[in-house]
Amino acid sequence: MIHTKAYAAYSATEPLAPWEFDRRELRENDVQIEIIYCGVCHSDIHTVRGEWGPTYYPHVPGHEIVGRVTNVGPAVTRYKQGDLVGVGCMVDSCQGCPNCKRDLEQFCVEGMSGTYGGYDRIDKTPNQGGYSNQIVVRQEFVLKVAESLPLEGVAPLLCAGITTYSPLRHWGVGKGHKVGVLGLGGLGHMAVKFAVAFGAEVTMLSTSPSKEADAKRLGAHRFALTKDPEQLKGLNSYFDFIIDTVSAEHDYGMYLNMLNVDGTLICVGAPPTPAQISAFSLIFGRRKIGGSLIGGIKETQEMLDFCAEHNITSDVEVIAAKDVNEAYDRMIKGDVRYRFVIDMKTL
Amino acid sequence: MIHTKAYAAYSATEPLAPWEFDRRELRENDVQIEIIYCGVCHSDIHTVRGEWGPTYYPHVPGHEIVGRVTNVGPAVTRYKQGDLVGVGCMVDSCQGCPNCKRDLEQFCVEGMSGTYGGYDRIDKTPNQGGYSNQIVVRQEFVLKVAESLPLEGVAPLLCAGITTYSPLRHWGVGKGHKVGVLGLGGLGHMAVKFAVAFGAEVTMLSTSPSKEADAKRLGAHRFALTKDPEQLKGLNSYFDFIIDTVSAEHDYGMYLNMLNVDGTLICVGAPPTPAQISAFSLIFGRRKIGGSLIGGIKETQEMLDFCAEHNITSDVEVIAAKDVNEAYDRMIKGDVRYRFVIDMKTL
Repeated sequence: MIHTKAYAAYSATEPLAPWEFDRRELRENDVQIEIIYCGVCHSDIHTVRGEWGPTYYPHVPGHEIVGRVTNVGPAVTRYKQGDLVGVGCMVDSCQGCPNCKRDLEQFCVEGMSGTYGGYDRIDKTPNQGGYSNQIVVRQEFVLKVAESLPLEGVAPLLCAGITTYSPLRHWGVGKGHKVGVLGLGGLGHMAVKFAVAFGAEVTMLSTSPSKEADAKRLGAHRFALTKDPEQLKGLNSYFDFIIDTVSAEHDYGMYLNMLNVDGTLICVGAPPTPAQISAFSLIFGRRKIGGSLIGGIKETQEMLDFCAEHNITSDVEVIAAKDVNEAYDRMIKGDVRYRFVIDMKTL
Repeated sequence: MIHTKAYAAYSATEPLAPWEFDRRELRENDVQIEIIYCGVCHSDIHTVRGEWGPTYYPHVPGHEIVGRVTNVGPAVTRYKQGDLVGVGCMVDSCQGCPNCKRDLEQFCVEGMSGTYGGYDRIDKTPNQGGYSNQIVVRQEFVLKVAESLPLEGVAPLLCAGITTYSPLRHWGVGKGHKVGVLGLGGLGHMAVKFAVAFGAEVTMLSTSPSKEADAKRLGAHRFALTKDPEQLKGLNSYFDFIIDTVSAEHDYGMYLNMLNVDGTLICVGAPPTPAQISAFSLIFGRRKIGGSLIGGIKETQEMLDFCAEHNITSDVEVIAAKDVNEAYDRMIKGDVRYRFVIDMKTL
């Protein structure tokens, strides 16, 4: 067994605290990774606090993982000791269903196996995530990471990056498109970077005037304060796409009306209560509202390669493991620009 | 002026009654049509009863019009006296905006001019619809109708037909697709016929067991009673498309969950209250919900030609003009299979 240090939740209400446990011995096609950085995603908080339903404890969250390969199983062909790699939100899937075969493992018919919050498909033990110094993952779910980028900024690409890259690619966003990005946080700041890199005209839609300068620095061409009706003038039927990263309740109708004919509102944030959507706002303008969930492994690799080529990383604040509870509090207040990343040397 | 007999609403609350009025003299590119049949659409009721907002009176509804050309203006090139023609939901648009130029006059930036409920773009008088023996329409909004089909069954194609044909074409529905049709009424029965004609596997989703035989007769391959959980087993993540023709309140989440990965729920019916839609039901499965509004003139002609080629018409019950108020009552009870059509000889 592989002795592992970690930060774990022991219940839904206590702060995270140190935990030591054993990872599984390497199976034939397993890769053992020494984790260097792990990003802190809002899903981590929802999961360990039981906000998405009851879960197991101790629970090690974290699915924005970068590190180096320290060992490989005998059947591993893709990686060798010393390789720089990443692990995202999934560590396994059935690999045989129509969705897996279409490289959409996130929609595996048998259910993908989450990096945390899920169970091992073979021994049925609870998966433990990336707030730890070691992880063992089958090679098919390990990503190659380029040596050229600052590694702390790469970690969040494994979730925040692919979550925004994938829908922009799926819906073919590019030159000539007008794209609105709703909400400037972990997801939103990556959506701006990608949409700009793909050649779109990008408008940041935000409730916070203090984000304007940042939005422009990230590459947004325009900024509109969504609570100022003056700034929304001219945005009626304006956008081809709006990528909606907001997981607080908000007025979907207002944003649907900003879509041009055949425009699409893409939800990657999900409020806890249902959205109220008038069918009329879809019928007039033949508009659509769709969702997107992370991305498949093949596309995640494509995204990482794209980032290496275009020098794209996440804007991060590096923290020590012991500061993760404080980081959670600050995230809930929206006080992070734009992702906390845990330095695993501090464990 | 062109003396015209009609059935008109005189207020939002009185029954429709005879009215005689003058249509405009022909302009250069106008076509004068003697109306033979006019379909009765649910929009007629909503409009004349002021359910979609206040309107003008007297008000002649009707936008599923077939008839013969009796006269043409000097600049008319497309039609001549004696031609069999149709008029649908629009009689004019700006013809110059990006949407009109894409043959999407229904989304004209200046607003399309409704056959009734709208205003003439030139003299600003209220447009009067097809429950009448005559209509005058500019040639660009007149459709050619084949001589081969039973004309009473062609009339509803001008609204119910194009409203279902257009989204099925827009979203590329065809062979290999599993399509659910939600609601078997004027729109639903046309959606079944078109989806079957396009080669899809079609399932009728209905709350009414009495519709099963009809659904099968119309070509549906399967029938599922939506209030019987037993009959819904196996429909989870089943459909590529569901075309939702229901304008009463209903549970959108239930139908979104019947969509497979990348599936689309297409709204052509619009309930009066907003739908409650969980973003999670879109995110998991990368599902979409979109709307569609009738279709452009070019596509309406394409639909009429397709119907002539494939011998597709609407299932109708022909009524006399004086029976239109009773027809309205029956429509509200869902007692029509599947469209009332007024025989204009009875005016």
